[in-house]
Amino acid sequence: MRFSPLIEQLIESFRVLPGVGPKTAQRMAMHLLEREREGGKRLSEVIAQAIDEVGYCQRCRTLTEAPVCALCESARRDDSLLCVVESPADQLAIEEAGGFQGRYFVLHGHLSPLDGVGPEAIGLDLLEERVGEGAIKEVVLATNPTVEGEATAHYIASQLARHGVAFSRLAYGVPMGGELEYVDGGTLSRAFNGRLPFGLE
Amino acid sequence: MRFSPLIEQLIESFRVLPGVGPKTAQRMAMHLLEREREGGKRLSEVIAQAIDEVGYCQRCRTLTEAPVCALCESARRDDSLLCVVESPADQLAIEEAGGFQGRYFVLHGHLSPLDGVGPEAIGLDLLEERVGEGAIKEVVLATNPTVEGEATAHYIASQLARHGVAFSRLAYGVPMGGELEYVDGGTLSRAFNGRLPFGLE
Ligand SMILES: [Zn+2]
Ligand SMILES: [Zn+2]
Repeated sequence: MRFSPLIEQLIESFRVLPGVGPKTAQRMAMHLLEREREGGKRLSEVIAQAIDEVGYCQRCRTLTEAPVCALCESARRDDSLLCVVESPADQLAIEEAGGFQGRYFVLHGHLSPLDGVGPEAIGLDLLEERVGEGAIKEVVLATNPTVEGEATAHYIASQLARHGVAFSRLAYGVPMGGELEYVDGGTLSRAFNGRLPFGLE
Repeated sequence: MRFSPLIEQLIESFRVLPGVGPKTAQRMAMHLLEREREGGKRLSEVIAQAIDEVGYCQRCRTLTEAPVCALCESARRDDSLLCVVESPADQLAIEEAGGFQGRYFVLHGHLSPLDGVGPEAIGLDLLEERVGEGAIKEVVLATNPTVEGEATAHYIASQLARHGVAFSRLAYGVPMGGELEYVDGGTLSRAFNGRLPFGLE
């Protein structure tokens, strides 16, 4: 015996969530059905609505249900600084660390030619258009300190070189091989302030 | 800055799941929106359908979308043995341990007078009706080895005493203060085979 077919489907469906194995998925299904039907109904509705309505900001590509996100709309940010990140979670981590007052651009990944992820897939055409507007003086290449993140930063710097902007990269404090999303705010803030000029060696 | 309002709602909604804190909820929301929209859509649909269609088996009260569950429908189970458990997860744990060939009755909790959980809330009227049918010779009181589980077992034994059935309770191998759901199959199987007569001291 296992559970009924529909309950087994529910357990299986929870496996789509990160870090959720068979036992955790079973606990989640039982919890919703036994104790949290109202909360479960709401979870179901909000997932459907978010998947339907959340897209990319037309200007910075972060996730938002609006055509343009609140940060891009804000009049209080410095248009001369643009911070390029791999994900909305990285963007949030930098915002929560505090100190950076410029704008963002979100790649949703990094270059990965073997997986077919080329420049357009990470929005580099839109990024070049943005830099071409002329307001940006410095591009902070805050991709992850991984091999792929470094390669992507180098590619972007070479692609944008002709626009005459300065490049920088997060400096000390960021552990090699780590992911920005999990760096603590203090470390991230120091790394931001200590950012170094980034050139094409 | 935080995420957009709809994404914040999505993160908050994931907190309804057991063991999911703010950081895990954020990871789940980002994962669905960035990489798993198809799986997320399916999760949303299956949650809604399960909450809508899954109810209690009319005979044993386990969770099922059918009026009567597959185990109650089965002709290959021993009608003289009835195992009373607190939850469908406990029932599954006993089934997976193997060895027990009787029927089940699911309480969905235990008596808890201070929380207003009385005999009817855990289906004891239906349980008495079931025992009153006359086929059952032994009731295995497999409630959790906790204070509440023990009290509930005693209450059921006293309530059903006049029907002249034997009572037993899982014996050695079950750790005191633990929850059946998390006991390994071998231990559970031994405890089942070593079950002891249960009397009203
Ligand atoms: Zn934006
Ligand atoms: Zn049943």
